[in-house]
Amino acid sequence: MRVYNFSAGPAMLPTPVMERAQQEFCNYRGTGCGIMELTHRGKHFEEVIDRAEKNVRKLMGISDNYAVLFLQGGASMQFSMVPMNIMLPGGFAEYADTGTWSSKAIKEAKNFGTVKVIASSKDIKYTKIPDIRHWKPSKDASYLHITSNNTIYGTQYHSFPDVEVPLVSDMSSDIMSKVIDVNKFGLIYAGAQKNLGPSGVTLVIIRKDLLKRTPETVPTMLRYSTHADEQSMFNTPPTFSVYMLALVTDWLLEIGGLSVMEEINNSKSEALYETIDSSNGFYKNPNDPASRSKMNVVFRLPSEELEDKFVKEATAEGMIGLKGHRSAGGIRASIYNAMPLAGVERLIDFMQEFQKING
Amino acid sequence: MRVYNFSAGPAMLPTPVMERAQQEFCNYRGTGCGIMELTHRGKHFEEVIDRAEKNVRKLMGISDNYAVLFLQGGASMQFSMVPMNIMLPGGFAEYADTGTWSSKAIKEAKNFGTVKVIASSKDIKYTKIPDIRHWKPSKDASYLHITSNNTIYGTQYHSFPDVEVPLVSDMSSDIMSKVIDVNKFGLIYAGAQKNLGPSGVTLVIIRKDLLKRTPETVPTMLRYSTHADEQSMFNTPPTFSVYMLALVTDWLLEIGGLSVMEEINNSKSEALYETIDSSNGFYKNPNDPASRSKMNVVFRLPSEELEDKFVKEATAEGMIGLKGHRSAGGIRASIYNAMPLAGVERLIDFMQEFQKING
Repeated sequence: MRVYNFSAGPAMLPTPVMERAQQEFCNYRGTGCGIMELTHRGKHFEEVIDRAEKNVRKLMGISDNYAVLFLQGGASMQFSMVPMNIMLPGGFAEYADTGTWSSKAIKEAKNFGTVKVIASSKDIKYTKIPDIRHWKPSKDASYLHITSNNTIYGTQYHSFPDVEVPLVSDMSSDIMSKVIDVNKFGLIYAGAQKNLGPSGVTLVIIRKDLLKRTPETVPTMLRYSTHADEQSMFNTPPTFSVYMLALVTDWLLEIGGLSVMEEINNSKSEALYETIDSSNGFYKNPNDPASRSKMNVVFRLPSEELEDKFVKEATAEGMIGLKGHRSAGGIRASIYNAMPLAGVERLIDFMQEFQKING
Repeated sequence: MRVYNFSAGPAMLPTPVMERAQQEFCNYRGTGCGIMELTHRGKHFEEVIDRAEKNVRKLMGISDNYAVLFLQGGASMQFSMVPMNIMLPGGFAEYADTGTWSSKAIKEAKNFGTVKVIASSKDIKYTKIPDIRHWKPSKDASYLHITSNNTIYGTQYHSFPDVEVPLVSDMSSDIMSKVIDVNKFGLIYAGAQKNLGPSGVTLVIIRKDLLKRTPETVPTMLRYSTHADEQSMFNTPPTFSVYMLALVTDWLLEIGGLSVMEEINNSKSEALYETIDSSNGFYKNPNDPASRSKMNVVFRLPSEELEDKFVKEATAEGMIGLKGHRSAGGIRASIYNAMPLAGVERLIDFMQEFQKING
């Protein structure tokens, strides 16, 4: 029996994807071996990585002005690769600090130039996205960096700033959860392990003119252009992770693409927040309503004891991964693309029952 | 039906490993989801990565003086990480150039200091490992770098130089194929996709005193100490690749460890070279006999037409991946740990039959 896995990542994958990967695990399309055993230079894997790229382009409406790359190292590696490649000589970059991952990105960028934090919600414990209408971005920054969704604190941008410099976003935890206009961005990156597949592959979407910014001194493997020139096959890519990403994006196309996915995600998060808001304070979400994440729904109960009991009893009923991040506490229900509405409904039933007994 | 896959990497994995991974793909140990869907911060994956590390230590006899790391980016990323971390300030490193991958390592190291090539077989088309008795390594180099097995040209070190500086080896294509004394090395690295598992994870074994060499300016993700301090979980590791590596190393322990593996590998390569050498020149291995690789057995036929025919007919008989690397031509039979003796025997039967008909 499949459980409902509310883990923040690595996270559950669509059941049809898991079943298909299992079915052809040892014998990929009649080859007599698994896709992970096949050379990346052969027709089978080349078809997989081609399809993965085409799927990403189709789902997100990405034009030929952008390169689509499959890299390694996770978003954490991108925290360095971004400034290493696109910080202009002697230049500075602007960052918005909306949580733990933004802070880490800022820390790494400081190795490569001056960093200006132009917006922060640190002093209010990251409970909101600072109102973008009040930002004063510079026209001469190398780029402006945001974190579109904050997994730990459960906040999310629901619109993006209009800026003249390249807008860069870490979208690890909400990529492909909704329709966005890629043309607003210079660079988007996302570790796959929340909405796209297993850990071990990182999607990078970069406007091609930015590929030329990289200083000569940057090592080959850390240059975006190396991977763009070789269709992400400069060296052996993480083939099985790319294969899983291809299957997940096949699935997204089959269900109708990102507009359909967005509707489902809206239904899921609305139902969950409605349950919290109508609980007469038994469940409390600490965040500014306008900044609530549709991917990671965080809430507190009246006591830590009740929170522990909640997690324990939910686990026993086949709902796992609900414990909040150690730095935030409480409960966190991560409801990425692969979480079906039925899983959220089951959680809601459980929450209401739990409140009746313990409220 | 499983084929025999002679691909240079990604390569075939042990059949029992593939079958077990398939069986528990959607339901890992009764959790109701796959290991790739489970958080890396939970007890299930923690047990996996602990086991992977313990297996590696046990198989290779690695003491507590060394850190064992599971990183991303492949050997190509290590070409930069090695000099970035252990090149001394204002120092130089020595490299032996024994093939394409050595040359790439040399190219990247030049970004971080002076590189001296102390031995090379480039002028004889990489057909041998330069005799280590004639090397004159410096006592004040930051390190000496070798490539223990050359996948493309089919040569291999069968002993290692004794040096006072840290000996660094790219062992991507012969790691755990035989017993070695890790204490001779300062640092060993290996992409997993030949002998250890699927692509997407890189094993690094580093003597702990070398962790202190890294300059302050090196970004967090590119510092070995970051990963050593966090047991390779500073950020989300490539969980499924680490899981597969744990299964492959379980299998190595089950068959009796590296001394047993080495005997099997010796039998495989001896039988294959014997077939080549007794073919009256129909099959020709171009390399110095003392430098022949036990992992990648390369040979030529009397014409390219016959080589094409050989590959085509072998494929039809369930032996795939035999085409030589595009830069070397000919035939290459990669016979890593997972290739059973029966696969090599089948190839030998085919070779003898093919010679009878076409010789």
